[in-house]
Amino acid sequence: MVNRIKLLTSGESHGKGSLGIIEGIPAGLKITEKYINAELSRRQKGYGRGARMKIENDKIEIYNGVRFGKTLGSPIGLILPNKDWGNWVERMSIEKSSKQIDKITLPRPGHADLAGIQKYDFDDIRNVIERSSARETAMRVALGSICKKMIKELGIEVGSRVTQINKIKDENSIPTNLNPEKLSKVADLSPVRCLDKTKEKEMIKIIEKAKKQGDSLGGVFEVIANGLPYGLGNYNQWNNKLQVKITECIMSINAFKGIEIGLGFGYTDKLGSQVHDEIGWKDNKYVRFSNNAGGIEGGMSNAQPIIIKSVMKPIPTLTKPLRSVDINTKKDLLAHKERTDSCSVPSASIIAESMLSIAIADSILEKFGGDSMQQLKKHIDCTAKY
Amino acid sequence: MVNRIKLLTSGESHGKGSLGIIEGIPAGLKITEKYINAELSRRQKGYGRGARMKIENDKIEIYNGVRFGKTLGSPIGLILPNKDWGNWVERMSIEKSSKQIDKITLPRPGHADLAGIQKYDFDDIRNVIERSSARETAMRVALGSICKKMIKELGIEVGSRVTQINKIKDENSIPTNLNPEKLSKVADLSPVRCLDKTKEKEMIKIIEKAKKQGDSLGGVFEVIANGLPYGLGNYNQWNNKLQVKITECIMSINAFKGIEIGLGFGYTDKLGSQVHDEIGWKDNKYVRFSNNAGGIEGGMSNAQPIIIKSVMKPIPTLTKPLRSVDINTKKDLLAHKERTDSCSVPSASIIAESMLSIAIADSILEKFGGDSMQQLKKHIDCTAKY
Amino acid sequence: MVNRIKLLTSGESHGKGSLGIIEGIPAGLKITEKYINAELSRRQKGYGRGARMKIENDKIEIYNGVRFGKTLGSPIGLILPNKDWGNWVERMSIEKSSKQIDKITLPRPGHADLAGIQKYDFDDIRNVIERSSARETAMRVALGSICKKMIKELGIEVGSRVTQINKIKDENSIPTNLNPEKLSKVADLSPVRCLDKTKEKEMIKIIEKAKKQGDSLGGVFEVIANGLPYGLGNYNQWNNKLQVKITECIMSINAFKGIEIGLGFGYTDKLGSQVHDEIGWKDNKYVRFSNNAGGIEGGMSNAQPIIIKSVMKPIPTLTKPLRSVDINTKKDLLAHKERTDSCSVPSASIIAESMLSIAIADSILEKFGGDSMQQLKKHIDCTAKY
Amino acid sequence: MVNRIKLLTSGESHGKGSLGIIEGIPAGLKITEKYINAELSRRQKGYGRGARMKIENDKIEIYNGVRFGKTLGSPIGLILPNKDWGNWVERMSIEKSSKQIDKITLPRPGHADLAGIQKYDFDDIRNVIERSSARETAMRVALGSICKKMIKELGIEVGSRVTQINKIKDENSIPTNLNPEKLSKVADLSPVRCLDKTKEKEMIKIIEKAKKQGDSLGGVFEVIANGLPYGLGNYNQWNNKLQVKITECIMSINAFKGIEIGLGFGYTDKLGSQVHDEIGWKDNKYVRFSNNAGGIEGGMSNAQPIIIKSVMKPIPTLTKPLRSVDINTKKDLLAHKERTDSCSVPSASIIAESMLSIAIADSILEKFGGDSMQQLKKHIDCTAKY
Repeated sequence: MVNRIKLLTSGESHGKGSLGIIEGIPAGLKITEKYINAELSRRQKGYGRGARMKIENDKIEIYNGVRFGKTLGSPIGLILPNKDWGNWVERMSIEKSSKQIDKITLPRPGHADLAGIQKYDFDDIRNVIERSSARETAMRVALGSICKKMIKELGIEVGSRVTQINKIKDENSIPTNLNPEKLSKVADLSPVRCLDKTKEKEMIKIIEKAKKQGDSLGGVFEVIANGLPYGLGNYNQWNNKLQVKITECIMSINAFKGIEIGLGFGYTDKLGSQVHDEIGWKDNKYVRFSNNAGGIEGGMSNAQPIIIKSVMKPIPTLTKPLRSVDINTKKDLLAHKERTDSCSVPSASIIAESMLSIAIADSILEKFGGDSMQQLKKHIDCTAKY
Repeated sequence: MVNRIKLLTSGESHGKGSLGIIEGIPAGLKITEKYINAELSRRQKGYGRGARMKIENDKIEIYNGVRFGKTLGSPIGLILPNKDWGNWVERMSIEKSSKQIDKITLPRPGHADLAGIQKYDFDDIRNVIERSSARETAMRVALGSICKKMIKELGIEVGSRVTQINKIKDENSIPTNLNPEKLSKVADLSPVRCLDKTKEKEMIKIIEKAKKQGDSLGGVFEVIANGLPYGLGNYNQWNNKLQVKITECIMSINAFKGIEIGLGFGYTDKLGSQVHDEIGWKDNKYVRFSNNAGGIEGGMSNAQPIIIKSVMKPIPTLTKPLRSVDINTKKDLLAHKERTDSCSVPSASIIAESMLSIAIADSILEKFGGDSMQQLKKHIDCTAKY
Repeated sequence: MVNRIKLLTSGESHGKGSLGIIEGIPAGLKITEKYINAELSRRQKGYGRGARMKIENDKIEIYNGVRFGKTLGSPIGLILPNKDWGNWVERMSIEKSSKQIDKITLPRPGHADLAGIQKYDFDDIRNVIERSSARETAMRVALGSICKKMIKELGIEVGSRVTQINKIKDENSIPTNLNPEKLSKVADLSPVRCLDKTKEKEMIKIIEKAKKQGDSLGGVFEVIANGLPYGLGNYNQWNNKLQVKITECIMSINAFKGIEIGLGFGYTDKLGSQVHDEIGWKDNKYVRFSNNAGGIEGGMSNAQPIIIKSVMKPIPTLTKPLRSVDINTKKDLLAHKERTDSCSVPSASIIAESMLSIAIADSILEKFGGDSMQQLKKHIDCTAKY
Repeated sequence: MVNRIKLLTSGESHGKGSLGIIEGIPAGLKITEKYINAELSRRQKGYGRGARMKIENDKIEIYNGVRFGKTLGSPIGLILPNKDWGNWVERMSIEKSSKQIDKITLPRPGHADLAGIQKYDFDDIRNVIERSSARETAMRVALGSICKKMIKELGIEVGSRVTQINKIKDENSIPTNLNPEKLSKVADLSPVRCLDKTKEKEMIKIIEKAKKQGDSLGGVFEVIANGLPYGLGNYNQWNNKLQVKITECIMSINAFKGIEIGLGFGYTDKLGSQVHDEIGWKDNKYVRFSNNAGGIEGGMSNAQPIIIKSVMKPIPTLTKPLRSVDINTKKDLLAHKERTDSCSVPSASIIAESMLSIAIADSILEKFGGDSMQQLKKHIDCTAKY
């Protein structure tokens, strides 16, 4: 579990905005709003995003924890205002309001709506959907990008790409000349973050079709990291394993329903003797003749690239709504419609980069300690093995 | 993350034995060694297990935390002695020893070996493999079975079955008349825990073949739970979601490389309008017309059965060893051989039952509190919705 | 340890402001900015506070987590802007600055200064003192006041008073007719929060004298709570005890150097038979003939009032500075002077009310669970004993 | 809060014995049962201990986590059998028993008894007192002694002495020639762990008197540590401060009702200018002209000795019992008598050494990381400042 770094976010989708606090980042890390905004902007792109994305154009404010462009070792506080707040002041009023506000009473299948009102005894589904919204991930990208910057300074890169949207699959491996950062740069050039130009076109076409039908699509992406030393995570206690921390981070992203490390479910296709990554010695270093394990063996990083795949379900908010029941009248009706995206898999892959960065940064601090970037680097120089 | 219940295990594979402590179980839960041993024995069965399993025949000792057959609210301490300890006294001596002990110097691909010695600067791989061994899961089954008993008293059942070994797949759904407990009972009758008798035979055949070749096989199993109320877990913070707690628990099991909730990667095959579980109202209750979400929406239980699939890689210890490098001489050699199973997917499914039970028990205590089973039941009677 | 409620604050003393996020508060709690501001204003009063307090006049902004005056179960985010920020924009710039900014190089004895620069390798003590400042406690009062409101709705009151400033001691017990809330109301009428009018005058006099001399004073206060049921906290594990949670909360307040529960160090004066609180039965209830234990026995609340005393050291920032050493030249010099209070014990007692409220709210949620105030109340009605 | 190291204990006072698991200790630490037993034996000594101590003569078994005399980085599991178990088999049976067992129905004032049965709805107070007993601290001494050994190898010593029993006070400071280890050695020579021979005699006399009267006595002790580098703990978040971790550890000890750091409540006697520890520069190092802060400023270690005082209340089990009420009949009666000590302050000081060691070890790992003692030492050599 993530426990060297602590982070909390708050904020409703149509409220004033989001707050985020992250604690545990060493002092002396260079960070700017510009850097964070670039990551936020990557999250907002992607073919298939709805009208909301144009409104958002998120701009973060570093509110504290940074001085003269460097972290202070103090917690870092971020504010991400909702640019659309003006239109929601009454419906999302913090104070008691005398206005009559329409309540949402039709739970959407696939969303938090029904479980949420049952959990909290609410009579207005808006109370649920404002927080359960994927809007919350914007702040996580912001916080995670600080971790991404931190581990980048330690030689660890994180990148991602989309491999599947609905049934359209890009089955090619990542070209070996693309390290994670380059991979992300290339993927960012595609509106669906797909490397294969033919598949890209098909993906766009299928999104367009879904959009017209008021429908939505899920998909799969890959998130990778390299430059990790041996021994992040450990096997000593069930919840200390690196894959536990990583899956915890990735599976926390809204609408994610599965994850694979390395070969993942593909491990069933072959015999043990065919899949385990054999070990050699070259240039004064252990080498591997494959990386089916996705960089994790025995709950630890093994100095090979981390390779994660994750699946996102189709967004449950549809303009073509599904059968539902009014929570007051118990009459069968069609579910509430909210403005929505038809596919946000490309965006999800960006969020996953941030979440993986949090997991890795946390593991690095666990193994190496250090109150400042300088101290952390010295500890790594001293004892890390690659 | 699991945080209402705390558990720690200790113990090396060939040491004196394992200890386990679990804290947070309410007072007044009936529990016996017999109950725990029955679960341990389920873990030890399964076609494809090695010679070790006959040695083990694990018998737990409840050492404290229970009086007159009921939990005291105190932490519960368990001891699981290693029946083979007599043969290992010298090699695993706690005290300094003057004897010359052979060191293991050939790291096995797919195992913790290489990363482990790099992490800890060991010169004997045995120092790694003794703890990274799946032997540790025996104690987790013991501790988890206490949670399983606890939630059973609250009307929550947990069960499992194997759906795939190597390429042999049982693609049938679980018959609707099998609730989780019955499912497990039926699965337990099969040496590979497979419901389909034809597939069972094929699975056994493929295991036999692998065994002869000194090879190993991975597979997939399903673990399910029913009887959960609405609203376990929450969407308020990234790591509060029910799927985070569940994946943390499941992915902590040795050799697990992927997990799916509900449709999982199958969500990519269909449009949003085809997969989200529509809502109806019947007999004074919300009903669902499908359960593709696997019982979790918006990070919460939605009163439908929890459905999890997970994949286990082929066991990395092979009697047919892989290429490796001696850590002293750096010469290419074949990896160290340890006594091993050729397939332990059936066993893994039992471990997963225990780990899922821990996740659910923790979520129940989070939502309902209660210092005794009686108080917990009263709280549930008061406010739970189904 | 506090673990049902999570809270993080961020912010430097002279930066833009503070952020605070608190998670775990049930849905449906009525809360307003006005309520929080009233608590903040209590913190800012007190004879002996410096010029800063007039600048501050803190006004909180509830940024999210509350709708129509009620909590949503979501994390609650607060912003507390620094009204003096205009004067600090350059010295505390978030972005890199080309301006030459004077560094602080004289560490103040008694403060975080020396240890802080050694810890982080800073060359400007300002990087330390901005976060280590007691300014941070303003946000904790804001967050804690939400907990105070929450437990108040459950019948638990928290109050405080000052009993000693420097050598001037008010040795009277709290009049029995003053429940915690009334106690605080009466204490709030005194500029030093002292109940005894004669002692109050002496305290003011001694503060005045210290102020003139550029010196500072410590003191002792009492913080109490009543209305707790039996059994908050437990003895099952070392860090589950109620006194551990409470001391953790109280001792986290800047400049606090000691704490007593009930008789505290006074327990040494008497024999066991003279101090333990004997038990009787009256009006269908257990009664106690004294409360020397301060409401905690065996690590649990015993349905008697919680009574805590804590000592604050004299503020280490003096206008009459102490011997120190310049961190660059290593020359002996007098320590850096910052604007300061000469005594802030009254203010500290208010902070302690908030911190005690956090500890109690956390314990309540641990024992009773509940996602909404309504559910929590039902659970309490069901099983709490008083 | 303690979070790099995790520890759990289990066990009832008259059950089979205690288990303890500690996780997070680096690999390569030399540890033996002999070392741990020596600490256990220190806990069992002390004038005023009851008959039980003779029975106990605790002998730990290192059950796992150690090989050839060195830690493996794995969790370390300890077993501490109850030598008196033979006499309790029936009364403390794990299994359901058909024997009629007398229940304890008279709650002892000052103990967990009354709150405990109310918390758990027990009808037999034995269910409470078995776990709430100070017997549990034996296992904590065992686990803590491993931490003590660990920090000792890093140059950090921990020691203690008794300064007060009932009203008899040893007001002398610790002689400057006694570093913590020597201090403990000298104190261990005294049956009451008091340095002053005259006071020692008076203490013994007063204990003897109390014993005869069937009464009990509290007292105060000092626990100190030296050799800490700058910057353990931090001021960045309320619960990260070193004093929070230390007080959490110390105040978790049974019957402790107060704690002071450095001057503690003595801070009220003087002005700020008189008490803050002035800074000088000598021999290429910062020096302090006093250590009133007890080694902690701004929530961090300041490279001066840590000085803690803590008060223990008189043991609440008296052979001269107090007024109580039978929980069944509600009749006024005298409280239940258990075999007991009349004074265990000397023993408490030993427990505090272990608990302080845990707090310091945890802080060291937080700041310096490291998977093995060798790595930890390298990190410290690299970046620690003294």
